[in-house]
Amino acid sequence: MGAEAIASIVQTASAAAINLDAAANAPPTPAVIRAISQALSSGGANPSSGHFLGDKARLLLETTRDRIAAMVAGLTENGVMFTSGCTEANNMVLKSAASVPGITVIVSATEHPSVLRPAEWLARLGIRMEVLRVDGKGTVDLDQLQGLISGIPGPILLSIQIANSETGVLQPIDLITELLADRPNILFHTDAAQALGKLPLWVGGAGGPHVLTASAHKMHGPMGLGAVLTGDVLPFPLEPLLLGGEQEWGYRAGTQSVPLIAGWAAAILECQSEGPVMIERLRLLRDSFEAALVEAVPDARLNGGSASRLPNIANFIFPGVDGMALVAQLDAAGVAVSQGSACSSRRPEPSHVLTEMGLSEADAFSSVRFSFSRLNTEAEARHGAAIIADRIAYLRGLS
Amino acid sequence: MGAEAIASIVQTASAAAINLDAAANAPPTPAVIRAISQALSSGGANPSSGHFLGDKARLLLETTRDRIAAMVAGLTENGVMFTSGCTEANNMVLKSAASVPGITVIVSATEHPSVLRPAEWLARLGIRMEVLRVDGKGTVDLDQLQGLISGIPGPILLSIQIANSETGVLQPIDLITELLADRPNILFHTDAAQALGKLPLWVGGAGGPHVLTASAHKMHGPMGLGAVLTGDVLPFPLEPLLLGGEQEWGYRAGTQSVPLIAGWAAAILECQSEGPVMIERLRLLRDSFEAALVEAVPDARLNGGSASRLPNIANFIFPGVDGMALVAQLDAAGVAVSQGSACSSRRPEPSHVLTEMGLSEADAFSSVRFSFSRLNTEAEARHGAAIIADRIAYLRGLS
Repeated sequence: MGAEAIASIVQTASAAAINLDAAANAPPTPAVIRAISQALSSGGANPSSGHFLGDKARLLLETTRDRIAAMVAGLTENGVMFTSGCTEANNMVLKSAASVPGITVIVSATEHPSVLRPAEWLARLGIRMEVLRVDGKGTVDLDQLQGLISGIPGPILLSIQIANSETGVLQPIDLITELLADRPNILFHTDAAQALGKLPLWVGGAGGPHVLTASAHKMHGPMGLGAVLTGDVLPFPLEPLLLGGEQEWGYRAGTQSVPLIAGWAAAILECQSEGPVMIERLRLLRDSFEAALVEAVPDARLNGGSASRLPNIANFIFPGVDGMALVAQLDAAGVAVSQGSACSSRRPEPSHVLTEMGLSEADAFSSVRFSFSRLNTEAEARHGAAIIADRIAYLRGLS
Repeated sequence: MGAEAIASIVQTASAAAINLDAAANAPPTPAVIRAISQALSSGGANPSSGHFLGDKARLLLETTRDRIAAMVAGLTENGVMFTSGCTEANNMVLKSAASVPGITVIVSATEHPSVLRPAEWLARLGIRMEVLRVDGKGTVDLDQLQGLISGIPGPILLSIQIANSETGVLQPIDLITELLADRPNILFHTDAAQALGKLPLWVGGAGGPHVLTASAHKMHGPMGLGAVLTGDVLPFPLEPLLLGGEQEWGYRAGTQSVPLIAGWAAAILECQSEGPVMIERLRLLRDSFEAALVEAVPDARLNGGSASRLPNIANFIFPGVDGMALVAQLDAAGVAVSQGSACSSRRPEPSHVLTEMGLSEADAFSSVRFSFSRLNTEAEARHGAAIIADRIAYLRGLS
């Protein structure tokens, strides 16, 4: 296939398309694209090179660390370590537990697979692993957590996400840090992939969270970039996962992707300059979408609807409708949505997030996630809801 | 620091700059920059998303796999697994050995740190690790290799690079595969970071190599992208390093960076369309640089000069000259060069590659690497050699 064919593939974004899948990838904005192109055009140097070209690349890296640090209370630029994404960041944090003698790993049942699979890997190494239940709203069981930690005097790695990627349900990070305040040997990690840029975040302090992990492409930065964000004091050290270079203070070998980092910096700047107004606009957009959809499909039910949620995700059950068929119908109609996390979206299994919340397999299979970014318009939300209702009526008419 | 300031930093590449550090990072070409910008502007979807936007991203991934496969004999698109770079790729291959009972790991002494450090990590787990000597030319000791493998009946992971990143010295991959031909339990991995696009490569067959690892940014693709390239038959399976998603057939979780992958595709297309002519031009450029430098600095000696070498790297000893001071002088004069691998270039230690070749610490500290890409001109090679000779004369005049 020639360059022209590829260019046409990547350029032919249908003008009529409505992208309600921002939680899978929030598309890069013009400013982000410009920043990446500029960094690519700048002469392109390895930021580890000790000459004038390397200096420029290095300055860009350090400026972006500053930018990220400014988004998280308690974080300094020395606590910002770049990775290839939140999946690598989560793997790095979780797998660090393998080096801590006598450790127990506690994760919540609705974590992203990039937390759950490394936790299971630790369990296969013989490390004790406990899974926290969630209730029907998707919130972790704090009594179970309290019981567990009071029964485990040794070191613990606790990993509880701030916001779920499928439902947007928030976990009570402040209450969890209170539980941990007098336990200096518990490292509290929280996956902030969906939360950075949408919620106030902090790191450090008694109880933590001690480590946050983040993703650029969930906030209009580029795919292929994430970070491990650490406070000044860790109950035990993290271990490098990628070995073989002194980059990132020796914690993550490999040449940093300067162009992607430049893109993230631009995304953060836009996010900060729009601030709370953008968050409120997202919430209104999502709320009007939910209202329009419930009006048109009265038996639609929100998963986690009574919990505190991110402002940009709505996960609905449409009873009796095959969610996968609905996604396909919407695809054909120019509306992009997902059933669950993109990392597992092509597997014919019900969402573990929803079944852990108590949904039947049938209800989980009848659920679809709709997610918004600040690039979406009110008209898209309304028009999208109408198309969704129409396709549900069509599918129900078939059966 | 504002967006304008950053833009000015990344754009202010001095017009007078001569970049002789392509082995650290071969700068992206206009076609590569265009391909990345187009992919970013295409609506930006997660390639794991099962809708029309995801389809486009996925098609771009698969097309790039085809392209890479076309560069390596015996490789099919199913054997192309994207990573965040060659460091991750090397870590993934080496760390796989931890899951093979009774395995021995053999590496050459002049491997990149992203092979050596994971091998040492394996040794700390209790796995037997052997290091192959190199001779004064930098070539591995085949007698030692033959002796080792005939004394080790169990499974072996053998990792020997095709081309050294500091000296360009080539290893006799064909002779090594002959040695291994009747040993189906030896997995032969070769780090091709500097070789892809510059040498004919192959994978599979009796004796291997079974696995190649590659980097995009050493061949004018973007930083932050690499690959594990596997033949159809492996003596034992590789193990995923990043867990938590079904991407890359479950071997490498995490959203692939579609824009970077689009950039690599463009770089490969350019490389293939220029083909052997470009390689020959690189060699002539490097040779004329070497000749000019030796004429101006008669006591300069090439490290690995009598070995088969990559066409684009020249590593010189300038007796009695402090290499770090020379790099700094050249930096100030607008010539970008490195002392060794960028991954360790900021550490005040002599190059392990050079000391393993028998150089004294003093000679290693007096060595500097000059590396070329097809973006360099004949005038840059000549002008660069003149500036280098001038700075050496200056430094010698000081002492």
